[in-house]
Formats: sequence, C-alpha cells, structure tokens
Amino acid sequence: MSKSEPPARLRVGLLGCGNVGTEVVRLLRAHAEELSQRAGVHLELSGIAVRSLETRRDPVVPTELLTTDAEAVIEGSDVVVELLAGAEPARALLRRAVAAGRTVVSANKAVLATSGPELYEAAEANGAGVFFEAAVAGAVPVVRGIRESLAGDRVTRVLGILNGTTNFILDEMTREGSDFDDVLRRAKDLGFAEADPTADVDGHDAAAKAAILASLAFHSRVALADVPTSGIREITVADIEAAAELGYVVKLLAIAERGDGGLAVRVHPALVSRDHPLAGVHGAYNAVVVDAEAAGTLMFYGAGAGGRPTASAVLGDLVSAARLHTSGARPPAESRYAALPVLDRAGVETRYLIRLDVADRAGVLAEIAHAFAAHDISVETLRQVATIEGTASLVLVTHRQTEAALAAAVADLAELDPVRQVLSVLRVEGDH
Amino acid sequence: MSKSEPPARLRVGLLGCGNVGTEVVRLLRAHAEELSQRAGVHLELSGIAVRSLETRRDPVVPTELLTTDAEAVIEGSDVVVELLAGAEPARALLRRAVAAGRTVVSANKAVLATSGPELYEAAEANGAGVFFEAAVAGAVPVVRGIRESLAGDRVTRVLGILNGTTNFILDEMTREGSDFDDVLRRAKDLGFAEADPTADVDGHDAAAKAAILASLAFHSRVALADVPTSGIREITVADIEAAAELGYVVKLLAIAERGDGGLAVRVHPALVSRDHPLAGVHGAYNAVVVDAEAAGTLMFYGAGAGGRPTASAVLGDLVSAARLHTSGARPPAESRYAALPVLDRAGVETRYLIRLDVADRAGVLAEIAHAFAAHDISVETLRQVATIEGTASLVLVTHRQTEAALAAAVADLAELDPVRQVLSVLRVEGDH
Repeated sequence: MSKSEPPARLRVGLLGCGNVGTEVVRLLRAHAEELSQRAGVHLELSGIAVRSLETRRDPVVPTELLTTDAEAVIEGSDVVVELLAGAEPARALLRRAVAAGRTVVSANKAVLATSGPELYEAAEANGAGVFFEAAVAGAVPVVRGIRESLAGDRVTRVLGILNGTTNFILDEMTREGSDFDDVLRRAKDLGFAEADPTADVDGHDAAAKAAILASLAFHSRVALADVPTSGIREITVADIEAAAELGYVVKLLAIAERGDGGLAVRVHPALVSRDHPLAGVHGAYNAVVVDAEAAGTLMFYGAGAGGRPTASAVLGDLVSAARLHTSGARPPAESRYAALPVLDRAGVETRYLIRLDVADRAGVLAEIAHAFAAHDISVETLRQVATIEGTASLVLVTHRQTEAALAAAVADLAELDPVRQVLSVLRVEGDH
Repeated sequence: MSKSEPPARLRVGLLGCGNVGTEVVRLLRAHAEELSQRAGVHLELSGIAVRSLETRRDPVVPTELLTTDAEAVIEGSDVVVELLAGAEPARALLRRAVAAGRTVVSANKAVLATSGPELYEAAEANGAGVFFEAAVAGAVPVVRGIRESLAGDRVTRVLGILNGTTNFILDEMTREGSDFDDVLRRAKDLGFAEADPTADVDGHDAAAKAAILASLAFHSRVALADVPTSGIREITVADIEAAAELGYVVKLLAIAERGDGGLAVRVHPALVSRDHPLAGVHGAYNAVVVDAEAAGTLMFYGAGAGGRPTASAVLGDLVSAARLHTSGARPPAESRYAALPVLDRAGVETRYLIRLDVADRAGVLAEIAHAFAAHDISVETLRQVATIEGTASLVLVTHRQTEAALAAAVADLAELDPVRQVLSVLRVEGDH
C-alpha cells in the first residue's frame, strides 16, 4: 500500500527552548528509538531558535543547534515545533512556516485563540498540518479526542476546567474554608500561582483555551473577544458553603455549547452537581467533558500544565506530524465547515443560585417570589439558611432562564424594601 | 504535498449488522457530508454481510446491500468494519481482510484479546491498518489516547473500570447498602445486566479488554490467559462499609503495570481512595487512568457500551482508516517492539485490606501482629470495628507486599486459635 518509502530522517526545527522546549529535547533524546519506530522515520533535531544565545541552559540542549535566526530554522526543517511565549513573533513565524508548507506543532494558546482559524486555513491551502494538543490543557488529549475520536459524531457541548491555578484555589477554599486571598497567597508560595495571577484568576487563560476548543469542536471561528469571561475573585467561602448544602461544588468553567441557531461560549465560576464527573477534579488538574450526539458524555482528565506533561503532548503531536509529512497525505480539513455564529450571551439559558440577605419578617418570601414571577422565572428551591439580628439569609435556585431575564429580575429584587443585599448570583451548569 | 489526488469514494464493507452496525449505518447516512469532508473522501457503504437475510431490520439499513457472503463484502471494499459477536468467524474474516491489504475497523474484543498481536502483525506485513477503539470501553477514546497521544511517552500503568455492569452493581451496593444478589436482580430488570451475567460479574469481559489495552500500552503480547481474573460475587456490603470507613471505595479494576523486568496484568475487585479520579466513576460508566512517565496521570471517561456510543467510536476509527487508505501511508507499527514478559502474579506488590473475626480477649492483637511480622509484613492500620457476643471484628491494612507473602501470612492467620474467620482479603490500588 505504501506509495513511496519514507525518508530516512525528518528534520525537526524548534522555535523556543524554555521549560517545555528543554523537556521536548530531553524526551527526543531519551526515547529516540521508540519515537522513530512510531513515527516511521528518524526524528532529527535540525535547529533551535532562541531569543538569546547567552541564556544558561540545561546540558541536554545541544548548543551547536542554537541560533537566533528563527527563519533559518524554519527553512531548514520539515516540521516546525513552536514553543514560544506570547502572540508575537510566534504568529508571524507560524504563518511563515505554513506558507512554506511546513507542518507545525504549536503549544501557543495566545496565537491559536486569536488567529487559529486563519492559521488552519493558510496551512490547508499549502498542504501543511497544524497540531496543537499542547495548547489546551497540557497533556490532556482533548484536542485529539474532539478532532479524531469524535470525527464521526457531532459535539453538542464542551464543559471544561481549563485552568489549574483557579481549580487549586477553589478546591482549597472548599476543603479548608479559607478565603480566596489566603489561598491565593499560599498558591503563590507553592508555585501553583504566578506572582501576577491576573491571567489565571480573572479567567483569561481559560477563555483563550475555550476559544480554541470551541472553534475546533464546532468547526467555527470563535475569537477570544467572543468569550464573555469572569474569574473567581468574587467567590466567597459563603458561596461555596451554600452550594455544598445544595449538593454542588464551585468550579471555574469554560463552556461552549450549540444553542438555538448558533454557538454560546463563556467562562465563569459555576456550580456543578457533586455527582458530575467534573466535581471530582481536584487540585491543579484539568478536565474537559465533551457531550456528543452519539458518544454521549466523555471526559478527558490530566495535568493541565508543567514542562513534562506539555512536552508529552508536543511529542504525541510530533509523531502524528511526522507520519503526515512522510505519507504525503493532505492534512485534515479543519476549516471547510459551515461555521455557526456566536450567540449573544443574553439569550443563553441556565439555572441560577442566588444568595441574599433580607429583613426577617412575615411576607418577605412572598414578595421575593412575586418579583421572580413578574419576570416569568420559576424558583426551584428557596431556603432560609440563617437568621442573625433581624436579617435572614436566603439561598434560592431558579429553573432554566435566560441571562437577560435573570438580570432584570435581580435588578428588581435589589430594589425591594426588605432586601438588604444581593450577595451573589452564580450559574448552575452541567445539567442535561 | 499531496502525492496523489484522493479517490472520489472509499468503499466501506460492513461485517455484521446488529445493534452497533445499525447505528453505524444510521450515522453514516445522517452525517454523510461531514464524514466525507473529515475523511477527505466520500464514504460509500459497499456491502453488509449478515448471518441471515430473514432477520427483521431497522428501515435505515439498505436491504439491497445485505448479503450472507462475507468474503464478497471484503473483496468489494477498501475498508472493512467488523462488528460481529464472538471470536469466530470474525477472526478468520479479519485475517482474510488484512491479508488482502484491507484496513480494518473492529469492535470485537473477543478476537483482539486472543489474537490481537497476530492480527496487527499480519496487517502490518500487508500494509493494512487495524483500528479498534470500539473494542475497549465503547466510546471512551483510550485506544487512540495510548496509541497516538502518548506516542512520544512511556506508559507505566493502566488502571481501568472497563465493565459497566459491575460498576453499576458496586455503585448501587455502595449507595444503598443492598446485597450483591438484590442489586444484580435489579440490574437485570433495568437492562444493565444480561440474563446470564457471568462474563460481566466474574470479570471475563474486563479481562479481555485488559489484555487488549496491556498489549497496546506496553507493545507486548498479552493473551487473555495471562490475565488472572476474579469478579465481584464475593463482595459484601460489609466489605464496602469497611472500605468506606477508611476512605476507600470498591471497584472492579483492570490493571496493567510495568514491574521488575516485565509486565503485570490482572482483574479483580480493589479499593481505591475516595480522592482517586476512578472513585468518582458512577453507574454504568467506564474510565481508564493511564500513568505515563512525562504526561503524568491521564483519565479517559465515558459510556463503555451501547449501540450509539460504540458506533461513534467505530466512525471515528473509520475516518482515520479512510485517511490512512487514501494517503497510501504505511499504518503505525504496533508490533515492532521489544515485548515485555508477563510477570507471575505472585510477585506483584500491593497493599491489602483484611477483615477478620477474632475472639474478644486480651493479647489477640499482639498474636495477629506477630503473625504478620513473622512474614515480614508491616501493618499500616489496625482497627477493631465492632464487638458482638465475644467476637471482635477487625479491619487491617498492610503496607505494600507481594501476593505470595500475603497469602502465606493469611494462611497462618487462619490457623491462629483466636481467629474465628478471615472474612475477606482485598487489594488496595491506585497509589503512587
């Protein structure tokens, strides 16, 4: 069946040699024989582009391959592995690589979240492949799962815990009853959070991955700007405890789902049932639940970051890229689809948990129920959880409702005389 | 990059048209356009081999393609999808198909567990591929995860819940405190267990899948006969409660791990920590945890059976098979590896939980501790859980120990004067 003998070697050019790049070099050396057998060709490092030759590096990195000339590395390679930080110059180099017909492996979420679809199309036009397992959730093989395992199915929803730092923080807050600020401080000390944790705790990191997964799962163009995002700074121990009493845990979720005539994508903290598979995802782990029409619910779970797990994903992609290159086959067509439009978030329906403090007197519950009824929102449960000095704390969960209707009802609620404070409004996700 | 234009169509021959086959036909029709785009070629059903033309079938099945001549279907197809029940004639037909250079997609665990490696080698020798995602854990994409995503890594252990019936039964016993027999009866009523549940509850179904996964993950030849197997008939509510008190849940696990100079494979009920990702796998779901050197711990979760989920896995494989066929590339080399020998189970080390009834009198604990010490087994915890009419119930957990040493110690224990009965001996798995 083979139309031509594979070439004896495949030249692999590396752009970037930080933490992940160093681990890629280490694994390429340590597993050289197995990798060659699996790829059907000897994988040979042909060049490593770095910003500065002065940087001190691990001895595993062959210094004779280091250069600051990234274009020369692209020129001298068959497959390009891009492991740079940030959108530029990575985007320009990837465009150049695929324009020259090089199949690329990228771990760069910043580029793929903003320019993924353009890159896939440019690659396709030039017969090049784009592999990016490592850009979403580290070693968790969700990109391949959606792209290949579900190639004969239709995805209806993707629900993911895509940021390890925030999952660690929420998990610790849940287990210990500690405040967000305390746990964040500890997470920094332990190396689970960066000195500037903004990208993690405000949800931007998860939003970039959500845009990539949504584009892939629904064959659509979802830009980072299409992903309404809120982070976990406002989550309190009281929110977590109220959720727990009703059988829920709080997670930062990335959600992409097929809606009425389009696609809804968003990142926000949400309650998931304790029985939901995502509820068991602890610490800094990542997990993605994919619902498909025929397959039902699948979950992919694993380490979402770190040099070695990310390098493992890069090498899995590199073996696929090598096989694609040597076969001379056309790469999978990612971009030929009828794209779904991204829906306005105001129309998205979900259930909500609302916590509020009210005056502890007769008739209050009726007034509140009436405020919801006026907006045609039905209340699923309503619980009075504590009463202190004339103030009663209420927790209520609504049935499915649009964000627009819920926001209007909450605005009215806040104006009611007996309502002292609306403490929090959280979505409940993961139902069927 | 494309060395030849892909052919306009790919002829798909189906062997078997039961529950899964009917769903495959339905999805092939319903998703025809998407499938063709993803496969890069039009997928055309060219023949459907069935045992009898008289069987009543779903109207989605095109009767004009039905035939009892399986060899003619193989002859007239480019890719063969084998969905027969049982080892024969499936094995002979698959051998014939790959000998004729046909890439095959199989959902047949009976064939792959007993003849997988031979089939992979015969296929490789003839330039044909073998895809078998659907043979292990239905829609759960663990075969592709090990074969492709971890192609640049080294698997060290596979731990799986591979049988939905037994997971459903154990889950119900845990939740309700009901006996095995009661829950089995209910599982039959609900359609979660077959009229003859032997293959499920005695672990044979899981053992077949364990042999397939172990062969794949460790590039070795693991036969069904290499998998020591015990089922869940002996598990009692008392076992489950004793496990729960120590923070464990009871699962039927399939285990394959790299040991000292070889590979250990087995299927048995085991305790896993409540914090382990497999502990959260409820109902009839399947899940597989794969540990790899660089990737760390990954988990794949989903529906392990059922017509539609299995058909989804078949179609994902069919798209891959179509791409392989049209590219003219050589299929991945599964069989070229230095195989690991399968280790004798007596040398496998794990922790154990032992429940026993003893006489409630002074000095008993010392005697028991001494019996373990005599076999160089150290005890991690020892708890007296109840005392009724002169009999004390003890639960103890050992440190890691070989099965041989543990068995010898338990034999001595049973002979001790104050020991009334050794109620159960269960392995504790999933530690690092």
